[in-house]
Amino acid sequence: MSAMDYRASGVDIREGNRAVSLMKAAVRRTFTPRVLSDLGHFGGLFRADFPGIVSPVLVAGTDGVGTKLRVASLAGDYSTVGADLVNHCVNDILVQGATPLFFLDYIACGSLSADIAARIVTGMAGACVENRCALLGGETAEMPGFYGPGDYDVAGTIVGVVDEPAIVDGSKVRPGHRIVGLPSTGLHTNGYSLARRILLEAEGMSLDARPGELMGATLGEALLAVHRSYLNPVLPLLSRGLLTGMAHITGGGVPGNLERILPEGVGAVMDPCWPVPPVFRLISRLGEVPEEEMRSAFNMGAGFLMVTPDPDEVVRILEEAGEKPFPAGEIVAGRGVVYREAEE
Amino acid sequence: MSAMDYRASGVDIREGNRAVSLMKAAVRRTFTPRVLSDLGHFGGLFRADFPGIVSPVLVAGTDGVGTKLRVASLAGDYSTVGADLVNHCVNDILVQGATPLFFLDYIACGSLSADIAARIVTGMAGACVENRCALLGGETAEMPGFYGPGDYDVAGTIVGVVDEPAIVDGSKVRPGHRIVGLPSTGLHTNGYSLARRILLEAEGMSLDARPGELMGATLGEALLAVHRSYLNPVLPLLSRGLLTGMAHITGGGVPGNLERILPEGVGAVMDPCWPVPPVFRLISRLGEVPEEEMRSAFNMGAGFLMVTPDPDEVVRILEEAGEKPFPAGEIVAGRGVVYREAEE
Repeated sequence: MSAMDYRASGVDIREGNRAVSLMKAAVRRTFTPRVLSDLGHFGGLFRADFPGIVSPVLVAGTDGVGTKLRVASLAGDYSTVGADLVNHCVNDILVQGATPLFFLDYIACGSLSADIAARIVTGMAGACVENRCALLGGETAEMPGFYGPGDYDVAGTIVGVVDEPAIVDGSKVRPGHRIVGLPSTGLHTNGYSLARRILLEAEGMSLDARPGELMGATLGEALLAVHRSYLNPVLPLLSRGLLTGMAHITGGGVPGNLERILPEGVGAVMDPCWPVPPVFRLISRLGEVPEEEMRSAFNMGAGFLMVTPDPDEVVRILEEAGEKPFPAGEIVAGRGVVYREAEE
Repeated sequence: MSAMDYRASGVDIREGNRAVSLMKAAVRRTFTPRVLSDLGHFGGLFRADFPGIVSPVLVAGTDGVGTKLRVASLAGDYSTVGADLVNHCVNDILVQGATPLFFLDYIACGSLSADIAARIVTGMAGACVENRCALLGGETAEMPGFYGPGDYDVAGTIVGVVDEPAIVDGSKVRPGHRIVGLPSTGLHTNGYSLARRILLEAEGMSLDARPGELMGATLGEALLAVHRSYLNPVLPLLSRGLLTGMAHITGGGVPGNLERILPEGVGAVMDPCWPVPPVFRLISRLGEVPEEEMRSAFNMGAGFLMVTPDPDEVVRILEEAGEKPFPAGEIVAGRGVVYREAEE
């Protein structure tokens, strides 16, 4: 065989360096005064002083974007998946009362386009700034043969901090507390394998289609709606000690996620009267998906649930902040998460 | 179309739950007293008290295993890639003087086998215990259509801590300092795209082959040799303040990684007399890869480099600990990393 170099094997170090220079400015904008390192160091350095926190506890989580990435790839639009991922991770640690400190990303692809990688990271960086979180590091891996052309996998890890007495873990959830929800923007980052299979494969719809349910929006717009962060509206509720439990509604839906924070002997009765984004009705109708399956695969419009002994105050504060909270159910003596079926 | 549920779309939540129960015991064994959470929480909780550290700085890094995973897949052996990843991450923050606190993993595949995921995570957990690092959380993502059958992508994030005055960043590297190396166990986790292309594709070798260079070992054994951790031998050198710089030799080889820690006006002259593992000679011979390309794609036997004003003491301590350190070169006034070519 002829002489072979690393580029011929499908790995292009120069394109990797180009990606780094394209994303540099956006990443540096996320650096808070506690960041001591710059890009290109082996690890990111973050000063662990937490003014005002007596007993600091780090809260860490890792997540991915899932097959929403395939929709981004089909649409040729990688500008939103970065924010999807950061906001997802922010919400995941927010449920324990933590505020974000820093985030690290992992991007993997078969053949690196510096422009696409930079677009993904720039999206992350924008969301990091909104969540006051440093984009402290990351890895961009080119793995020829592992990923289809144009496919990128994107995952991230967030680290936040909470004062130990302020950890919210559901242990103080009691019968009589109410459940207040905040709307999702759509599927967020869960249920895309099922949604793609029904809408794109079985129905053969294109991302440009404008099915009636979506009231003028394209299917691509509905499917790529950005997973929102709940940090800013929820922080004032936390600082006033109004919440006994929170659930970020991801894979497993309301039942799978709310159940994780309920103490022994305590259950939840959901009042599913909140607005369901039209994309879910479209999926349910075309796929003939039973309601129970829809509820365990999708958030169905409830992106974030809060348990509180004082729902009026919670709703008042959220509405003053321009949010659209809704009553979502109540905590009862019992077990598990059940739905009140008003119309049946 | 007929009614469709999430399982039919290729995502099996029950298999995911089975994976979690298979890996639980191994993960719990990594929990240090500072871990406040258990598996199944939204985020992992880690108490941020650092006894004996005056000005704690967190050091974080993310990395993947790269296409070494394809070799693991071909060999049907996922028992080692977890340790590869953890040790890689440990070394990445060790170069700045940090000791590990906790690690989070990300595993992605097209169709989840609980047994394979558990084997990967159990390998990570074992390496976490050896590096006194908690396996604080993780995400296992099933993404149908994204990954080939049997392919798993594995990435991880590590967070460690260093006392600010003890950060090692190369700024104190001076001409006259010596470079001491520690042997790698093989390719570690870099250069696999090139190695696979030459050995498995162009040459069509099987993982069971025993080429003469490998002196009795199979190709699979040589390619899956575990990426080692340098934490235990290097810690005593750090606590005695003997090192002015360290480089973990990953993608980019010695030149690409050593260069990252050299201050302005300072260069390195390498004496490449250390033992080169036979697998590199095999790759170089069969692929007719030029020496310069080999050096920038592979570690060539130098897994970890340390810069020190006192090489005798460094070598003495390492040898007493049962290590096989080697003189690797010296720091000079100048620029960049060059090789002394003794035989030319």
